[in-house]
Amino acid sequence: MKLALLGCGTVGSEVVRLMRTRGEELAARVGEPVEIVGIAVRRIDRDRSHLPVDESLFTTDALGLVKRDDVDIVVEVAGGIEPARTWILTALGQGKSVVTANKALLAEDGPALAAAAKDGGADLYYEASAAAAIPLMRPLRESLHGDKINRVLGIVNGTTNFICTAMSTKGTSFEEALAEATDLGYAEADPTADVDNYDAAAKAALIASLAFHTHVDLKDVYREPLRGISATDIASAAAEGRVVKPLCIATREADGVSVRVHPAMIPATHPLANVNGAYNAVFVEAESAGRLMFYGAGAGGTETASAVLGDIVAVARNKRGGITAFPPEAAYSDLPVKPIGEARTRYHVSLDVVDEPGVLARVAATFAHHGVSLATVHQSGRGDDAQLVVVTHTAADKQLSDTVKELTQLTSVHQVTSVMRVEGE
Amino acid sequence: MKLALLGCGTVGSEVVRLMRTRGEELAARVGEPVEIVGIAVRRIDRDRSHLPVDESLFTTDALGLVKRDDVDIVVEVAGGIEPARTWILTALGQGKSVVTANKALLAEDGPALAAAAKDGGADLYYEASAAAAIPLMRPLRESLHGDKINRVLGIVNGTTNFICTAMSTKGTSFEEALAEATDLGYAEADPTADVDNYDAAAKAALIASLAFHTHVDLKDVYREPLRGISATDIASAAAEGRVVKPLCIATREADGVSVRVHPAMIPATHPLANVNGAYNAVFVEAESAGRLMFYGAGAGGTETASAVLGDIVAVARNKRGGITAFPPEAAYSDLPVKPIGEARTRYHVSLDVVDEPGVLARVAATFAHHGVSLATVHQSGRGDDAQLVVVTHTAADKQLSDTVKELTQLTSVHQVTSVMRVEGE
Repeated sequence: MKLALLGCGTVGSEVVRLMRTRGEELAARVGEPVEIVGIAVRRIDRDRSHLPVDESLFTTDALGLVKRDDVDIVVEVAGGIEPARTWILTALGQGKSVVTANKALLAEDGPALAAAAKDGGADLYYEASAAAAIPLMRPLRESLHGDKINRVLGIVNGTTNFICTAMSTKGTSFEEALAEATDLGYAEADPTADVDNYDAAAKAALIASLAFHTHVDLKDVYREPLRGISATDIASAAAEGRVVKPLCIATREADGVSVRVHPAMIPATHPLANVNGAYNAVFVEAESAGRLMFYGAGAGGTETASAVLGDIVAVARNKRGGITAFPPEAAYSDLPVKPIGEARTRYHVSLDVVDEPGVLARVAATFAHHGVSLATVHQSGRGDDAQLVVVTHTAADKQLSDTVKELTQLTSVHQVTSVMRVEGE
Repeated sequence: MKLALLGCGTVGSEVVRLMRTRGEELAARVGEPVEIVGIAVRRIDRDRSHLPVDESLFTTDALGLVKRDDVDIVVEVAGGIEPARTWILTALGQGKSVVTANKALLAEDGPALAAAAKDGGADLYYEASAAAAIPLMRPLRESLHGDKINRVLGIVNGTTNFICTAMSTKGTSFEEALAEATDLGYAEADPTADVDNYDAAAKAALIASLAFHTHVDLKDVYREPLRGISATDIASAAAEGRVVKPLCIATREADGVSVRVHPAMIPATHPLANVNGAYNAVFVEAESAGRLMFYGAGAGGTETASAVLGDIVAVARNKRGGITAFPPEAAYSDLPVKPIGEARTRYHVSLDVVDEPGVLARVAATFAHHGVSLATVHQSGRGDDAQLVVVTHTAADKQLSDTVKELTQLTSVHQVTSVMRVEGE
């Protein structure tokens, strides 16, 4: 069984290393040895003498490598949209199975890739594309396909979870926590993809597509950055027995699905509340299976390579059997993705208010005016320190955001200090 | 696609119900409808009018049903060793794929069933056999097969976890907690299989076999009952920042594997420590993937039926493609299972001691005499109330048990009040 590796960065190097150190076990699991016959890199002149492969394997001609007659499996860990898309489409078109960790490409162009796999009679596996080593795609695709998934709540980005954990447990500010994440190598030099939730949004699109058997496009995922989180949010959550987490939320509604990524409060007793540091977890609510959670490292070269290797074994076994396993995306449901305004959720709102009689009544009336009913109201402080914390019952997101807009205009309200959705209750 | 259902108790009825209510979705996932053509029951005269199937489907001739020419898939949810074994072997021998939840049979006779599946060119799937709806078997069999699993720690029995949780959080005695579990329907009228850990031992054998790619027989699993747990154990654990959990522990050692089920202490910060009530979870340490956890309901008719349905879809798809997916047990490693005496672990020992100088020295010398080094020693109380709590470093189980035996004979020791293994640190 012959394999072409496209990309030799953190993940690719680790794939090379693991295929060497676990060669015998891999061969036992596949039924024959799997050999790397070429490694496409961008710069050929880099020193790669630490890798346990012959230097002659390296090439800058990725497309030529993909097209080689002796290649059975293509592993793409280069990332980015192009030329990765061309490589993958070419491989699938030639009936070569593809293993990829490229969540950006899958989120942008999943249906086209799935169609190419189907047409080419090839496998397209991408366990490593979300939540790294956590077996998540396979259970969603296979184990739960006798069930009906109604909701997925996930912590799918290690950097933002590290930041939320540090803010909650050590009381650091967002900026301090981000600096620490950068120092420890969790956050990239440019942390935009993580802290502005682009990374999580791509993963949410993939997860929701599999969970609901429908295609969810990246542009249909509602996204709010993490940057806005303040110490007030964290403290306000803690006072009510909740914690702030960077969530990806995908729900099946009566007339469609809703997919969003934003910071949110969850109960401190929720299984996700104890998922700390750079760890990831995905919590699934299925009609029959009930509440499930998958937990593990969500990033890291070795962890991602482990998921890639699992996929390599799977597609290699399928190849040997002359079969493809599953359609890469079973998008037969074709459910509409609802706009954020129609998402059903709850809000936690903290307000600095004027200390005078009737303030609570006016605030409550504003919520009522938009048809939002209140779950709890806590009033505290006196004078300049007077505060209200309101937690609503479930309502449409638009009702809630309209309410907050009107609250900011009340003369009795100095400031809306924190607005955050409440999930998982 | 035609299916024979063997057994129509809690799980079987739920399979019938789900196949009816989700018929359309199942057909979409499989690619064609899956129809139940017969249901084998022990007593034909029972009222089953609440089930959405024609009464003519019921039969007491299970073997005849299995052998019918039009049956493609056999689903066995009757349980027990015989006649279930004969039914399954017959089905596999005729090339019919089998889905089963029968952990007792799999633990007792796994290799023979796997061989029959291979010889018959049929699938044998058993996701529901351990941890019900939690996708565990599939990730162990497939997602992680590019990795090397070094350790599995699991809470795999809901009844005993419910009991430990009640004892820890409400301070109830073992007997009270068991009575509550029985009242709530978690424990059977005869709770022996649960509280004496027979159920967990069977699951441990299955999990270890898949995790280490070797056959672990039920008789090779070291088993201690839960019954011995006392309020002293719970309090002693809590005082040291630990909780008592009913664990299944499977470890890869230098020269074999070790598989055991017994109550144990784990750190309160361990992900398994927050798995409470009747929930189950399995924590996996893999060389590359790192620490993973799978969490969910470990029992229940609907939850188990969900796992069965997932397997039905998988084997039906394979059938349609004319293929079998994976060898049911890839036991190519053939590792020896080590006796409990050679298992490497740590002990937490509480002692009532005589309040006189030199007691600690004598106790410490006893540990040293058996080559066991101490991690922490806490001395508390005076007079009749003098107590020592010792936590050891890792040593062979035999060294530890020999130490405890000798401790009970010291004149300075009134009583060894609690001995429990410490895991997950």
